[in-house]
Amino acid sequence: MNNRRKFLKQTLATIGTTLIGSQLLKAESILPEKSKITLQQNDVILFQGDSITDHGRNRDVLIPNDINGMGRGYAMVAASAILNQYAGKNIAIYNRGISGHKVPQLEERWQKDCIDLKPNILSILIGVNDYWHTRDGKYKGTAVSFKESYQRLLDNTLKNLPNVQLIIGEPFAVKKVKHVDDTWYPEFLGYQKVARDIAKEYKALLIPYQEVFDKAEKRAAGNYWTTDGVHTTLAGVNLMAEAWLTTLK
Amino acid sequence: MNNRRKFLKQTLATIGTTLIGSQLLKAESILPEKSKITLQQNDVILFQGDSITDHGRNRDVLIPNDINGMGRGYAMVAASAILNQYAGKNIAIYNRGISGHKVPQLEERWQKDCIDLKPNILSILIGVNDYWHTRDGKYKGTAVSFKESYQRLLDNTLKNLPNVQLIIGEPFAVKKVKHVDDTWYPEFLGYQKVARDIAKEYKALLIPYQEVFDKAEKRAAGNYWTTDGVHTTLAGVNLMAEAWLTTLK
Repeated sequence: MNNRRKFLKQTLATIGTTLIGSQLLKAESILPEKSKITLQQNDVILFQGDSITDHGRNRDVLIPNDINGMGRGYAMVAASAILNQYAGKNIAIYNRGISGHKVPQLEERWQKDCIDLKPNILSILIGVNDYWHTRDGKYKGTAVSFKESYQRLLDNTLKNLPNVQLIIGEPFAVKKVKHVDDTWYPEFLGYQKVARDIAKEYKALLIPYQEVFDKAEKRAAGNYWTTDGVHTTLAGVNLMAEAWLTTLK
Repeated sequence: MNNRRKFLKQTLATIGTTLIGSQLLKAESILPEKSKITLQQNDVILFQGDSITDHGRNRDVLIPNDINGMGRGYAMVAASAILNQYAGKNIAIYNRGISGHKVPQLEERWQKDCIDLKPNILSILIGVNDYWHTRDGKYKGTAVSFKESYQRLLDNTLKNLPNVQLIIGEPFAVKKVKHVDDTWYPEFLGYQKVARDIAKEYKALLIPYQEVFDKAEKRAAGNYWTTDGVHTTLAGVNLMAEAWLTTLK
């Protein structure tokens, strides 16, 4: 760490609580500065995932940067901040999250909903349904098959988009809020580990959402951040967007 | 300015461009620090206005802090940031903007949509329709009647909520984007002056949105920030939320 950064870190540690929405401070604790992304002119950012990413978007909207096509979730709040902050860089942002999806569904629609959009920056948050849907026995997946399908998805991605910057969100759950109880554990931990391992294997930036929500629970109860243990409230949406934005320099 | 603040200001001037979404830096240029609001436990914030505030909210949702009841506009993005930043303070935030409304419509629904909600902090952004609807001759208002009705609204407010902190947004228009052309001027300037004068008269915090959008046009063209000269894009939503958040300490 050079002197300027050391100075900033010390200063920000002092003034941290007076800053609203400062990403830099929290960034220090989540991601090493050197690995962060510097947005470039004409970058294309794609948010992929399940309902947490989808969050009520109008799926008929296919153009980038459209407010109705972005939903009401973390992707919308993060996109809104990026388009303001990086105005003039002609950034295109898409949301293609679809409620209920697991990795196999992403695989089926990957050509149309990822490759064809030619993202430079691809953010994926997937996995909670890959576990959740096994609970009633109707879906026969395991943490092992989750990993295999996730690797296949990323191999396909890198084959078609060799220079894409990957961002992987750790699937998370907030215990004791509605759907999420002790019976989720330890199984669900295996799925979280897969996402973390895959992020390392594919040199993706990992957003450790479980840690983000665990820390947030020190500030307010779990049901302040999620409606059902999995889906975000208005506060949770900002919490996730803030964490996502720490991937940027 | 005490030494600590002087130090911060200098430091932030140095590091400004590395901070994403830092409100403090921009705050310096918009509002004097001493007049800003310190949020208190159990504060109730109400966003009132027209379509710019409404922005597609589900009007059947009457409870505070609900993501569907907040719309997709600046009120949603600002509320989301507040609920994250001030988690634990039990803040309640309502959006009661309604598309197409002018001050007379606010007056009609003020008991139900403002007084009964008992806000501590009341944010009003109104006026663009008070001008706009006169353009086809169907609405007979003037800048003078706008001022009179706005004063009546605030007198009624302060009679019922003597301790409310008022925030008044200056109505704005982005010239040469769709609906807004030279024929809006100078008439529209009169409506903007009313809002600024009223903010002073009622000791409200003024958010100078016209200045905010004028400055933003140096970073990207007008149609990057508004779809039609009046309504916000995804970038514009964040721009406005950012400006709104400068009212907070």
